[in-house]
Amino acid sequence: MNKSNTGLYSLAGLAAGQTSEAKADETRPWEKTTVVGRPIPRVDAYERVSGSAEYPSDVSLPKMLYGAILRCPHPHARVKSVDTSQAEKLPGVHIVATGTTPGFDVRWYYSRDSYSKIFDPLCLFEGDEVAGVAAETPYQASDALRAIKVEYEVLPAVSDEQKALDPQAPKLREKGNRVGEVEKYSRGDVEKGFAEADVVLEQTYSTACEIHTTLERHGCVANWEGDSLTIWESTQGVYGVQGGVARTLGMPLSKVRVIGKYMGGGFGSKLDAGKYTVIAALLAKRAGRPVRMFLPREDTYLAVGNRPPAHMKLKAGVKKDGTLTALEFYCLGTGGAHPAGGTSLNDNLVRDLYTCPNVRSEMTDVFINAGPARPMRAPGHPQGAWALEQMMDALAAKLGMDPVALRLKNIPTVSQAQPGNPPYTSTGLRECLEEGARTFGWDEARKKAEDRHGEGQEADIRRGVGMASALWVVGGGWPPATVIVRLFADGSVNLNMGASDLGTGTKTVMAMVVAEELGVDPNSIQIEHADTGTTQFASPSGGSKTVPTESPAVRAAALSVKKQLLESAAQDLKLAADDLEIQNGEIVSRSDPAKKKKITDVSALRRNAVVVGVGYRGPNPPNRSINPFAAQFCEVEVNVKTGEIRIVRFLAAQDSGRVMNRLTYQNQVFGGVVMGIGLGMTEERILDKEQTGKMLNANWHDYKIPTALDVPADMTCVPIDPHDTEANSTGAKGLGEPATIPAAAALANAVYHATGVRVVDSPISPMRLMRLFADRSKKES
Amino acid sequence: MNKSNTGLYSLAGLAAGQTSEAKADETRPWEKTTVVGRPIPRVDAYERVSGSAEYPSDVSLPKMLYGAILRCPHPHARVKSVDTSQAEKLPGVHIVATGTTPGFDVRWYYSRDSYSKIFDPLCLFEGDEVAGVAAETPYQASDALRAIKVEYEVLPAVSDEQKALDPQAPKLREKGNRVGEVEKYSRGDVEKGFAEADVVLEQTYSTACEIHTTLERHGCVANWEGDSLTIWESTQGVYGVQGGVARTLGMPLSKVRVIGKYMGGGFGSKLDAGKYTVIAALLAKRAGRPVRMFLPREDTYLAVGNRPPAHMKLKAGVKKDGTLTALEFYCLGTGGAHPAGGTSLNDNLVRDLYTCPNVRSEMTDVFINAGPARPMRAPGHPQGAWALEQMMDALAAKLGMDPVALRLKNIPTVSQAQPGNPPYTSTGLRECLEEGARTFGWDEARKKAEDRHGEGQEADIRRGVGMASALWVVGGGWPPATVIVRLFADGSVNLNMGASDLGTGTKTVMAMVVAEELGVDPNSIQIEHADTGTTQFASPSGGSKTVPTESPAVRAAALSVKKQLLESAAQDLKLAADDLEIQNGEIVSRSDPAKKKKITDVSALRRNAVVVGVGYRGPNPPNRSINPFAAQFCEVEVNVKTGEIRIVRFLAAQDSGRVMNRLTYQNQVFGGVVMGIGLGMTEERILDKEQTGKMLNANWHDYKIPTALDVPADMTCVPIDPHDTEANSTGAKGLGEPATIPAAAALANAVYHATGVRVVDSPISPMRLMRLFADRSKKES
Repeated sequence: MNKSNTGLYSLAGLAAGQTSEAKADETRPWEKTTVVGRPIPRVDAYERVSGSAEYPSDVSLPKMLYGAILRCPHPHARVKSVDTSQAEKLPGVHIVATGTTPGFDVRWYYSRDSYSKIFDPLCLFEGDEVAGVAAETPYQASDALRAIKVEYEVLPAVSDEQKALDPQAPKLREKGNRVGEVEKYSRGDVEKGFAEADVVLEQTYSTACEIHTTLERHGCVANWEGDSLTIWESTQGVYGVQGGVARTLGMPLSKVRVIGKYMGGGFGSKLDAGKYTVIAALLAKRAGRPVRMFLPREDTYLAVGNRPPAHMKLKAGVKKDGTLTALEFYCLGTGGAHPAGGTSLNDNLVRDLYTCPNVRSEMTDVFINAGPARPMRAPGHPQGAWALEQMMDALAAKLGMDPVALRLKNIPTVSQAQPGNPPYTSTGLRECLEEGARTFGWDEARKKAEDRHGEGQEADIRRGVGMASALWVVGGGWPPATVIVRLFADGSVNLNMGASDLGTGTKTVMAMVVAEELGVDPNSIQIEHADTGTTQFASPSGGSKTVPTESPAVRAAALSVKKQLLESAAQDLKLAADDLEIQNGEIVSRSDPAKKKKITDVSALRRNAVVVGVGYRGPNPPNRSINPFAAQFCEVEVNVKTGEIRIVRFLAAQDSGRVMNRLTYQNQVFGGVVMGIGLGMTEERILDKEQTGKMLNANWHDYKIPTALDVPADMTCVPIDPHDTEANSTGAKGLGEPATIPAAAALANAVYHATGVRVVDSPISPMRLMRLFADRSKKES
Repeated sequence: MNKSNTGLYSLAGLAAGQTSEAKADETRPWEKTTVVGRPIPRVDAYERVSGSAEYPSDVSLPKMLYGAILRCPHPHARVKSVDTSQAEKLPGVHIVATGTTPGFDVRWYYSRDSYSKIFDPLCLFEGDEVAGVAAETPYQASDALRAIKVEYEVLPAVSDEQKALDPQAPKLREKGNRVGEVEKYSRGDVEKGFAEADVVLEQTYSTACEIHTTLERHGCVANWEGDSLTIWESTQGVYGVQGGVARTLGMPLSKVRVIGKYMGGGFGSKLDAGKYTVIAALLAKRAGRPVRMFLPREDTYLAVGNRPPAHMKLKAGVKKDGTLTALEFYCLGTGGAHPAGGTSLNDNLVRDLYTCPNVRSEMTDVFINAGPARPMRAPGHPQGAWALEQMMDALAAKLGMDPVALRLKNIPTVSQAQPGNPPYTSTGLRECLEEGARTFGWDEARKKAEDRHGEGQEADIRRGVGMASALWVVGGGWPPATVIVRLFADGSVNLNMGASDLGTGTKTVMAMVVAEELGVDPNSIQIEHADTGTTQFASPSGGSKTVPTESPAVRAAALSVKKQLLESAAQDLKLAADDLEIQNGEIVSRSDPAKKKKITDVSALRRNAVVVGVGYRGPNPPNRSINPFAAQFCEVEVNVKTGEIRIVRFLAAQDSGRVMNRLTYQNQVFGGVVMGIGLGMTEERILDKEQTGKMLNANWHDYKIPTALDVPADMTCVPIDPHDTEANSTGAKGLGEPATIPAAAALANAVYHATGVRVVDSPISPMRLMRLFADRSKKES
């Protein structure tokens, strides 16, 4: 852990011109920093809390119309006819568009090989798009939707993924409901491994389908000027939206401008454009007016993505000393009605988290009549962790070993799942486990909880302590990223980057990277970002790759500015450039501090009134694996009379490479833990599988996300900085997703520790827990 | 003239992939072009005519307040007290600010050495700022202005510049009313020159004060987010406004973002911020709400600039053969109440338009109690041309020489006024005169007009033909300018430049420069411009320097993209980069056209998903003078019974270097001629010099700008392309201003030719003309 990162950040220090001592080396990470690593509040904090920040859903254009989408109410149906005549007569209604409206005969590609029409006559899920309207007010738009008469032929539907492959199940595709081939992985010889094991356990697990429920709903405002389209979209990646819309509408990228700026949360379901984006654009084109299309909350439950449910079976073998000998994993999942990675990455932890010579996995993805999945914070990993990390806990119990010790026994040094088994640039898993356990007081807490079991008056409240580990499949970021840093004539700085800030603090971290090199206050840096018309290029902010992808490009751009400045000052001062450094707005000679020049007087800046530095993201180091690691520790109280769980405290030890900003780092980790608690304890898409196939809790009242009362007041973040000198030029690895992976499993293990009941199906709701208590009583009696 | 530039532009040709054959040389102009030079309609034509273009005065922000400024009604007064209590009580009024309001004690610098406070208690002109308000509606704001009670001590004022130096004149400054020292210039020996002359004439001339009267009024919308200020301003230069506001408010440039984009006309009075900009920013800060501050039309007459009036005396000597021997010039002018270049550049044509060994000039600038001047389209030059070009006409008449022949006799090859007499990179004056006269049919028209004088029934309508020449003081542009051209992943293009497009077609011309190099349709290029937050740097669009300054930077940026593409393709194809060229979206080998690669497949583009080219404006060639030249020809009919003038036709021959776009070139020239007609025939600020000192025609009804009926239907533009290979890498020289310089003088010479009356004071109104006819009759009788 980088102890120096815990000091309070002082603006006075910066104002006094403290600058990095790192040499201008674009590939090597800093040895020492003065800005990066500190806990600096967000540079856009004022805008966010004052309400002056303009989110895409705040955009209001003159003459803007309100768009709305009519969605199929059935999980599977054929549209026989659409009568728009009444809707078109309503006041304020400008456009009522169906699949036959000119311009709307467009294909929307859910994946490279799979598309449906914008308004497809065959509806494959509840929420599939049937028609669109644009009207003067949102009320007129929704009245118009109600006035459209659609005749559906309701088709039999399959809503239960475990029944999708039954021969009599209704089929979504001619070929059947299996998505592609069964995904198989194997190394070593699992049979041999199980034979060598002293203990072999086998268990089924399942996780429920989760919904993204971003605070800002999905949508955009679309506006045409001649043949040029501008879209303000709540998105994780403006370039992804630009590409998707351009491809769909057959336009050059230069004619599609996408502006993101602020956005109210994205966990993977806003990585790309949605059908709603294209519908908004087509309505706007036809109306000759801007169209605002933000989906109702209910629609976001049905149609814009989810974390696929997983049905898993895991068999594990282990020697008495804790050495893993074999892992065998089966998984069935569904991405819903379109190929959307129903089992994507579910087996990654089984493959790679622990040293294990013999591993086999098989994953089966099926179609069902439900909304398509989209990546959700660490796709597949929390599901896999739910199985593997509960299994590790069970193995430890069976062996009579400490769960932390069992994991320490199997720490990997290379990625076993990658071809050639590349070594990790850094592996902080051991430190996460050790430093995490020490800080948490693991041993004492376990013992104290066990000692208290069955105590007097509080007998109904059982205390338990559990933990789990994780790695995330990627983490070092990757090219391309292109960034521009610009010095104004007075020495102040503008940062231009394509990446979106999902609310995680990307802008702040990048400003700190610039500040580190150029010796300016990060709060003084002007930032232009997330606009395809004004920035260079960035891939979507997702995959925990934003900081490790963008920060090296930002640093390279800042270093380019610094290099130009120092070289020009060297000419001006007749000194060597490497004798010069930036101090407090001046270029000063290291050897003779009397020799100096104001930045604003350096010829390079005076000549052009600006110094422009373009920075590119270099390639990752060859034959290396770059992964973040995590270990989380959880203490709970379970009321065995009500099944209620109170999470007493949570500690997350995280190796995500360099800690860029101690404050936003912690916020990311806490946010990840909270989402993990949601998976573990509260969240579940409920489909009416037996009858209508419809979603029963498509709203924020019935679909439970953790509230402040579900989250422990006592949360601790323990950053493990492995001083990674290989990953990239800033040393940062991914943070956003790994923090959410082990949380639900740690919670389940704590519940087991408290109650002796193993909850293998998520979420651990009071009702489910009480049912399991009852089952146990029956068994015991 | 570049004959190849007159062909109709064909998009089909571009689509077929015609590209420049110019070699990738960043400093040498193209030898041959396929896009540049054609008559291409503006790339933003749709937005402009459809109304979808958002001008700064269209900007409307949520919770925006309306600002208004209380202005002193007296030309000279001291504010004794301001009572805002009633105004503050009015509904909807948020702020009533005076000089004592916290935050408003700020100095506004009219020039480096001269400032007044934002609300200065000493008012020096009618329209000086006294207080400001911000209210919910514009009506509430103007009600609030009326409710402010101001007690003024009215001071004696001087409104007549010719009386400003009288000892008893009221003084605007302690030192007196003279602005700085008398500006003196001399070369050779004028006494000797006059002694050598065969003919010597001396004459006084004057031009009236003109107002800019831009279609979009002056103003901005100002909005704060925390300590960051964003200003949407109708401006010719966003970086100028940014600098002015940052300096005034003591902010770093990175905290002031200025956005221009569209703007509704600027002729010099929008080169920088105005006091209104700062007042808007301060009101917005105090209100915590955005403030819109666009001035009422009347205020723009009083307070935001004008073309200073000029009182000139010119003495000229010439030999019988037409050789000029001496010129002596005296000028008195005023920039109003603040030092604003009251005589700036008035003598430049006398110094430099014709070869003349002996020249002397003296120019006296004075303060008067009137609104400060600001540069107006070719500052000083139309005034000087009014004198010099009428004098040349008079000399020709006296010598019995043709006016064109007299000018051809005195064509310069070097700048005589510049130190070292640097040669011109190109001098198109001879071609302007010869090609202009030939195309106009000068000889025939003069003869025909003279033959008709005194003809039968039409005796009251006299026809006359006149001409005049010009040069403009600068013309080659100059650094700095920094531009970025960016290739999207699909090969389409984004152009990022800081410069404003005043409506002259800058965006279109720059898109053509990119298209020339990269072989794309100029209409497909996305343009980001005039925003200090997203572009690099540009000086204000003024001085006719925008195209010659920016276009070489744009070309350099495009060439940088081209170079990166060709070099990467050369590696990909294992060919030499100079064997490759861009054709129709592909990189093709010249030697073996079968060897080729799609642009979108070139590694450099695939690697980064973008290719970024940064282009800088290089320095001008040393020891060279770069100037545009012009000659204009005018035919009029004068009704000698009413004094009405009908301009029958106008021809403008223009050497502004390379013709970048035949269509926008012509538009610029016609616009320049129309403004010259305004100076010559209709425009005049009328001050009540004898009594109140107030302006009597501060509105569009009483101040006459030329209407469609005042402008000839028959206008011809004759571009003279001198194939300038030295000026810069595009060969363009300035165009906007030179086109307006000789027009008024050509008109006056045509009126003289028609009537025999020399109108030496502008404007040539019917009343003035009738008075002169009456004077002549008196003299003759």
